[in-house]
Amino acid sequence: MWNKHQVVEHIIGKQREQAKAKGKAFAPSNIALCKYWGKRDAELNLPVTSSLSVSLHHLGTVTEIMRATEKDHIVLNGIELDEHEPFAKRLITFLDLYRPHPEFKFKVNTSNNIPTAAGLASSASGFAAMVLALDDFFAWNLSLQDLSILARMGSGSAARSLMNGFVLWQAGSRSDGMDSFAKSLDIEWPEFRIGVLTLSDLEKSKSSRQAMTETINTSILYKSWPAQVSRDLDRLLTAIQNKDIQLCGETAEQNALSMHATMIASWPPTLYWLAETVSTLNRVWEMRKQGIPVYITMDAGPNVKLIFEKNISTKIQNVFKCEIIAPFASFSNLNFHKRER
Amino acid sequence: MWNKHQVVEHIIGKQREQAKAKGKAFAPSNIALCKYWGKRDAELNLPVTSSLSVSLHHLGTVTEIMRATEKDHIVLNGIELDEHEPFAKRLITFLDLYRPHPEFKFKVNTSNNIPTAAGLASSASGFAAMVLALDDFFAWNLSLQDLSILARMGSGSAARSLMNGFVLWQAGSRSDGMDSFAKSLDIEWPEFRIGVLTLSDLEKSKSSRQAMTETINTSILYKSWPAQVSRDLDRLLTAIQNKDIQLCGETAEQNALSMHATMIASWPPTLYWLAETVSTLNRVWEMRKQGIPVYITMDAGPNVKLIFEKNISTKIQNVFKCEIIAPFASFSNLNFHKRER
Repeated sequence: MWNKHQVVEHIIGKQREQAKAKGKAFAPSNIALCKYWGKRDAELNLPVTSSLSVSLHHLGTVTEIMRATEKDHIVLNGIELDEHEPFAKRLITFLDLYRPHPEFKFKVNTSNNIPTAAGLASSASGFAAMVLALDDFFAWNLSLQDLSILARMGSGSAARSLMNGFVLWQAGSRSDGMDSFAKSLDIEWPEFRIGVLTLSDLEKSKSSRQAMTETINTSILYKSWPAQVSRDLDRLLTAIQNKDIQLCGETAEQNALSMHATMIASWPPTLYWLAETVSTLNRVWEMRKQGIPVYITMDAGPNVKLIFEKNISTKIQNVFKCEIIAPFASFSNLNFHKRER
Repeated sequence: MWNKHQVVEHIIGKQREQAKAKGKAFAPSNIALCKYWGKRDAELNLPVTSSLSVSLHHLGTVTEIMRATEKDHIVLNGIELDEHEPFAKRLITFLDLYRPHPEFKFKVNTSNNIPTAAGLASSASGFAAMVLALDDFFAWNLSLQDLSILARMGSGSAARSLMNGFVLWQAGSRSDGMDSFAKSLDIEWPEFRIGVLTLSDLEKSKSSRQAMTETINTSILYKSWPAQVSRDLDRLLTAIQNKDIQLCGETAEQNALSMHATMIASWPPTLYWLAETVSTLNRVWEMRKQGIPVYITMDAGPNVKLIFEKNISTKIQNVFKCEIIAPFASFSNLNFHKRER
């Protein structure tokens, strides 16, 4: 078993000389179709199971990193955070892994172009963009595989936010986590759409980290979660290969609801659903009864995302106030961090 | 494997001579603290797991049975049902098991003194009262164990509605179900209370029978349900023995939420919860945070039942509009079907 420092040492070795005045990168947010739910190692964020996501194209986080004097500065969406704020503390602890020497201070300027409130897991794109910006700043020129391992140690699902399109994060089995990283599935599905509904911008009553820990410790139904994931990953890989929206949507929806089910069955129970969550679920199920192939997924929060194909976009917009994202749109006119390795 | 007719033949044999002009009996409704959820045999209603309930004292069903001419008559709460109504058909099919000869017709007069809408499983008290009334009508003088087996074949949870107080229905393992019956735990807990809230009197969108079948067939999390029950039964037996409301309430609540979790995780998903269900759960959890020991249980429907002790009855009535039931009140002044065997 390694700790985080040993993993970083192994990957970047002694490459801790500042190479550029500024490092900068973008990373997309991602929506899991098969959820990451449960850690086998909390220090390295090693997951119990593999997971599969789709990245949200241009929606995500842009991060700039520079050297600072005296103290670290964390600027989020244009506002400097107090260093005792939980998010700032978490970033600073992560940066500790990469300082050339303890007196080396960073200025981090990070901006999300997604409503943080929409439950779009800004920590995933945030830590992915941070790792990419560090790679730029120090000119490590690491592989996406190594960057995925580093991002994972900041936030588990950040491992999946380094690539676009469909991404599979392999759980791996090594105790040092060197086989637990994400890779692109390299499949295009241009008609695939994600609809993001914002039901609540309230702060979550319980962090997903805490809900995850409580679920693993107290939910007996969670014992069947790995079997659920195993079946769902098989189905999703087939669905994506065949562009089968029904198989893809049904599997993603059952996977998300099963994750929530493990929380509802934990003690104390975690119920992220609001009254509007329940009415949204019912509305989606009503549409399906009318033959409209729309499905839901949900992360550890009250918000609902829709899964469908382009041909029903108008129908979706007639019923829901939502932002529709095309994960496979062209990147030609976007200033996206591209790397070929 | 026996069919229903063979079980009846085994228990009542040739005792099919009408003995009295009228048979009459009362049976209480019951609330499961550890749920019956899943059948290992649909013909005989043999359960996957054992379950544990508390009977609702004077709230239940009174049934009278007489001989009729020409056709069966089913009168429910004073109104004669059409013989093609699902409930009437179900009772008539059950009565087929007991006719002295095919031309023997019954008149059944059955009344519930519980709001059917409150989700108090009137089929449990209904089939239990029916079996007790048949025992009276034919003067079978059967043991409660045999009556429990007969009631079970009408409706699984009816097996538990023949006795008062806490009742354990042993799953049994025989394919003929002769070891699958309920028995009283013979423990008094005078301070124990059940609060019945009626959130919805709408017809359920899906029968619990259908939800149960779909859950077993499609919910991967259901595979862990027997382990949940096994732990919960152990805990409940300890809690009831020690009159430990916290252990009893926490266990019953987690058991009920876990049952709903298996439905939420099934396909198509079954979500019985209404917006009011969610707000009621949140209100109960808020009260617990304030140190008030109140817990919930729910059956396969949107309604919520509260579990608490007498000393907080006033607090409960200040917050909820609910009927409070004392399952261990004296029966001295009630016209309750009593039998000592």
